[in-house]
Amino acid sequence: MKLSAFGRKFTADAGITSLMDDLGNALASGDDMIMMGGGNPGQVPEVQERLTEILTGMTQDPAAMTRLVGIYDPPQGEKQFIASLADLLNREYGWGLTEENIALTNGSQAAFFMLFNMFAGDFGEGNHKHILLPLAPEYNGYADAGIAPELFRAVRPEISFTGPHEFKYRVDFGALDVTPDTGAICVSRPTNPTGNVVTDLEMAGLESLARQHDIPLIIDGAYGMPFPSLLYVDAQPHWNEQIILCLSLSKLGLPAARTGIVIAAPQVIRALSGINAIMNLATGSFGAMMADPLVRSGEILSLSRDVICPFYKRKMEHAVTVFTEAMGDEGQWYVHKPEGAMFLWLWFPDLPVSSLELYQRLKAKGVLVVSGHYFFPGLAEDGWRHRHECIRVTYSQDDAQVAEGLRRIAQEVKAIRAEYP
Amino acid sequence: MKLSAFGRKFTADAGITSLMDDLGNALASGDDMIMMGGGNPGQVPEVQERLTEILTGMTQDPAAMTRLVGIYDPPQGEKQFIASLADLLNREYGWGLTEENIALTNGSQAAFFMLFNMFAGDFGEGNHKHILLPLAPEYNGYADAGIAPELFRAVRPEISFTGPHEFKYRVDFGALDVTPDTGAICVSRPTNPTGNVVTDLEMAGLESLARQHDIPLIIDGAYGMPFPSLLYVDAQPHWNEQIILCLSLSKLGLPAARTGIVIAAPQVIRALSGINAIMNLATGSFGAMMADPLVRSGEILSLSRDVICPFYKRKMEHAVTVFTEAMGDEGQWYVHKPEGAMFLWLWFPDLPVSSLELYQRLKAKGVLVVSGHYFFPGLAEDGWRHRHECIRVTYSQDDAQVAEGLRRIAQEVKAIRAEYP
Repeated sequence: MKLSAFGRKFTADAGITSLMDDLGNALASGDDMIMMGGGNPGQVPEVQERLTEILTGMTQDPAAMTRLVGIYDPPQGEKQFIASLADLLNREYGWGLTEENIALTNGSQAAFFMLFNMFAGDFGEGNHKHILLPLAPEYNGYADAGIAPELFRAVRPEISFTGPHEFKYRVDFGALDVTPDTGAICVSRPTNPTGNVVTDLEMAGLESLARQHDIPLIIDGAYGMPFPSLLYVDAQPHWNEQIILCLSLSKLGLPAARTGIVIAAPQVIRALSGINAIMNLATGSFGAMMADPLVRSGEILSLSRDVICPFYKRKMEHAVTVFTEAMGDEGQWYVHKPEGAMFLWLWFPDLPVSSLELYQRLKAKGVLVVSGHYFFPGLAEDGWRHRHECIRVTYSQDDAQVAEGLRRIAQEVKAIRAEYP
Repeated sequence: MKLSAFGRKFTADAGITSLMDDLGNALASGDDMIMMGGGNPGQVPEVQERLTEILTGMTQDPAAMTRLVGIYDPPQGEKQFIASLADLLNREYGWGLTEENIALTNGSQAAFFMLFNMFAGDFGEGNHKHILLPLAPEYNGYADAGIAPELFRAVRPEISFTGPHEFKYRVDFGALDVTPDTGAICVSRPTNPTGNVVTDLEMAGLESLARQHDIPLIIDGAYGMPFPSLLYVDAQPHWNEQIILCLSLSKLGLPAARTGIVIAAPQVIRALSGINAIMNLATGSFGAMMADPLVRSGEILSLSRDVICPFYKRKMEHAVTVFTEAMGDEGQWYVHKPEGAMFLWLWFPDLPVSSLELYQRLKAKGVLVVSGHYFFPGLAEDGWRHRHECIRVTYSQDDAQVAEGLRRIAQEVKAIRAEYP
């Protein structure tokens, strides 16, 4: 099989592909594996019930059924949902949106693929631009999304210690270098993999940099504001035309519906819709139609705030408690301040083995996590040991399993340290 | 807004984008427009009922609901549906498929985007390959799908006259030039826009060429075999590892679900799934889960053969009768032999205005069609008048509207000829 440069690049041993393969093989190898690797959201009973109710309503309404299965949406996405969402966000936050400010995509990942390649890569005449990731570690799903090579530049964070076994990454504005070759700045908030919530002040700094250089600030709000709102600290939702805000219905409980939402200036939305038409003809209607009643009534915000956020916050607190107990005060270990999302980011300074080896040893012990080294797209290999000392652990699934998994992690880290005294 | 080469190429005035815009604007301009431009399938009551029944069943089964909304599918697509489909096709046609031969995508268009760019475009070291379209006219949705420029090469067809007002395109094997720069051959069957069904003999010829040159033959079966089977002539479903067969649930009645199906050699499926992981993370579950019961029971074949095919065949016969009556024997006019799909391809030799102008005049008369000149991707402008003498007319919607639309087309063609005597 002879593949083009595109084909070869996208089938090379990409971080995300090997990760997916490994997850798949681990799953196939037996059902006693504790899955703390993926990003699948938990099942929130209230959400599940409400979605079932909405879908049952549609099955009893032939006109709704026809729209749900039988009519192509426009490339910009389902019109009614877009109108409802603009209304809600204007009502709640006064963002002054029109329907020209919103496009839907087949999931967030598809939105990032299009946005990154629109704003960076080959600009012709030998010019090449990059996406600046101001705060490594950052989501590994970005890493391979560039059609052009070396699409990302990342910057090491500042590390501040916020507790005896807790730290927080901060944007190192001194190290942040926006150049004429920077096509856009992108940050996830809350951050996948760390659960960090970049502060309002840091966001203002990034927005101001973007404005100075006349480039967009892309905010990946897949876990963020205003929904699904997996934030355990105070932070403000914020948008204006300098910002491309990417939201998702996945962590709300609809990952299988593949619905991404992009809120941006009309010219960005027009370009994105045009690219979407060529790549996908149209987006699916399912997610938009399922969420539309929740958006019209505003429930999407109250469910996020009163049900979904507390569901994950409790899981996070449980996970931290279990892990803290299991580690005790033996050896150096830190959890990134768990401010949002559904991950603990564990850092074991001076661990005698790499995070990749730790991952493999944990797999052998029946616990699947993700090695942290995948989460530094755009950061040149610079001998920084820290990037090989962290793992990402998902706490969205069953509490007892999560607890058992965390205890095995603690045990294994201690065993490794005992092996290399 | 500064866009990359990718961004500029994909937001340029692409045929499909301007077409979609024009369709959208026409729709917005009032509801008395007769829509014969798009490719939306008709509403087949039996299919609608069966889908409603299936979906109602899922809403009553919490485990099914969880899978439908709450769990990411793997990048290759929903496993149960893939297994059921492999079983069905083996049972019916003995293709010897395993689950490694099938991948799902978010619609056919997404599959073609990935396949075309995998097998053609930049191959490094100055090499550039193309996709060979052996039978122009061909689907305009392909035209803009290349990341690299000039991705397609097309060949003029032979034209044979099959009735007083009927013709059929045939592959001109003498003109077909497969070179070392041909990455793949691609043909839609039935053909969008013409309703042509490339014969079994022609297909064998194309497959043999593909085999000789060790490149895949991509068959776009969105309207074809074994489902939804919009074929009004005899033809055989056929697959082996030389072939990449692309199917879709859209024309079966699920366009809003965006489910494309690719059947190919395992290494093609692996590559496609890897690219899909990077571009989309996962495919949606909705279409696969809706169709799974139909595939398991084999109903997808019986519904296609006994309900969907006759539904469109009757519409086709009605459309041809109406148009034949309306045109009479005045002036030269031909319908492409309507062997499949949901389009009439009308040819008006020596029409004094271009098909684009005819389209505009028809729009002013309240009938939306598609100018045929969009459907010659990869065919160099060579002064061939024929490509500006045809229009595509969709007959999938309401019969009375279709009849009225066809009468207005006949009237306008006669009026134009009267204007330029």
